[in-house]
Amino acid sequence: MGSPFLLQPSRSLTAEAMAAAGQSQDDLKRIAALRAVELVRSGMVLGLGTGSTAAHALDRIGDLLRGGDLRDIVGIPTSEWAAARAAAAGIPLTDLAAHPVVDLSIDGADEVDPALNLVKGRGGSLLREKMVEGASRRFVVIVDDSKLVPRLGGSGLAIPVEVIPFGWALTLRRLQNLFDGTPGFNLKLRTASINAKASAFTEKESEIEPFVTDNKNYIVDLFFEDGIHGDLQAISDDLLRITGVVEHGMFLGLATSVIVARKDGVVLMDKEAKSNGF
Amino acid sequence: MGSPFLLQPSRSLTAEAMAAAGQSQDDLKRIAALRAVELVRSGMVLGLGTGSTAAHALDRIGDLLRGGDLRDIVGIPTSEWAAARAAAAGIPLTDLAAHPVVDLSIDGADEVDPALNLVKGRGGSLLREKMVEGASRRFVVIVDDSKLVPRLGGSGLAIPVEVIPFGWALTLRRLQNLFDGTPGFNLKLRTASINAKASAFTEKESEIEPFVTDNKNYIVDLFFEDGIHGDLQAISDDLLRITGVVEHGMFLGLATSVIVARKDGVVLMDKEAKSNGF
Repeated sequence: MGSPFLLQPSRSLTAEAMAAAGQSQDDLKRIAALRAVELVRSGMVLGLGTGSTAAHALDRIGDLLRGGDLRDIVGIPTSEWAAARAAAAGIPLTDLAAHPVVDLSIDGADEVDPALNLVKGRGGSLLREKMVEGASRRFVVIVDDSKLVPRLGGSGLAIPVEVIPFGWALTLRRLQNLFDGTPGFNLKLRTASINAKASAFTEKESEIEPFVTDNKNYIVDLFFEDGIHGDLQAISDDLLRITGVVEHGMFLGLATSVIVARKDGVVLMDKEAKSNGF
Repeated sequence: MGSPFLLQPSRSLTAEAMAAAGQSQDDLKRIAALRAVELVRSGMVLGLGTGSTAAHALDRIGDLLRGGDLRDIVGIPTSEWAAARAAAAGIPLTDLAAHPVVDLSIDGADEVDPALNLVKGRGGSLLREKMVEGASRRFVVIVDDSKLVPRLGGSGLAIPVEVIPFGWALTLRRLQNLFDGTPGFNLKLRTASINAKASAFTEKESEIEPFVTDNKNYIVDLFFEDGIHGDLQAISDDLLRITGVVEHGMFLGLATSVIVARKDGVVLMDKEAKSNGF
């Protein structure tokens, strides 16, 4: 496969294409997850992803451990949720202090652009995910094809930014200023209840109940009507320079490959096609 | 005063020079603090600093409020410590949500370089300080002359970096990698007890008791034998790009003036000498 920009099957996937026909979105997620787990070898240190797609991978790894097809696996969870799910699946857990280098991380994503940049963190665990996956020799992303976008933010859904609770309203204002003049830009503090709405400009800190991350921080969600235009690395630096910003949900250059499950088959997007296992 | 690089008295300070003769370091801190408080006007929103020098300013503002010389002051504390000290001094408190623009912040610093860049945060509250002081129209730093350095890190004491507890050992390794090859560079996790020592490379996370910031994060202290060389803004960006790094103690371009108390008098370092009140 020459370019990651083109979605072409990496080899004949006729059987999978047939199996995938008429599948639900969750079935597609599961198909992508199972393909990723084929890359797991006994003895590996694994980064364990968070969310509905990663859940299929965790369950599958647990099955293989129980059946004896995999041994000596340890996993580093990317969230409290992943820790609980992995423990339930029977995967032994460790941490980055004991294993600062991770062999393989498998995780879902909210968006994937043609250069394999990601948006992650709508589930709220972007910081731990970025830390674990950034420490991984190989980071395989598993998605159904609804997650593919021409540019990050292009789905119209949120790009999350993790912020320190202290002074969050000021941090939100600075984020607003950073994208001033961007047509269709909007942002808001994520609240604990999906039904709750909050605007930092009209309500006081005490009047809303913010969503709290595993690191006890808040999330400000950025919305771009037509996705983020411009130099993503420069925009990342601008975000990180804001004092209250801890991390953001753009994962630039971290994914080594993306497994996309579509109704007509499984597709691999890979930076180095030669090294992939497909 | 033409250049902030030269320490020249901003005007005749004979009386103060005489008063300062034979003063202790704490006396000098107090002298600098009193000069800064002369800039406070009734009705101002103040950023309230943290530490032994800022304490003198807080106490003085409290005295002026009680005596009726100042009115309608509200203060935004830069730490839990400052909140308690200011409350004890009788200064009404508010926050950045209610007052996103601060008229004047007064705070100490651990180091001041000739371009008015600072190192702050040896007290552990660098993030809140940077947030409040970065939101200030005017940020006046008060120090005794032992804090003046030719370059940041030049005192041989720590440049603190606030990091997320999750994966701190990995974050510490990345900080180490960033300064690999810098002669005399060292770093360590700050521990809760001054007597305790910790090295992330030999001990596990569970075996040490880290110092915890007001934001529930950890501090990694960076040490440079001869100070930091190179482009400070670029080094700042490199630090902030590390996933677990929340903020660092270099305050670049934030101070608008520095009041230095020396045994022979008070000296003003100012970016815009014309606008200062001396």
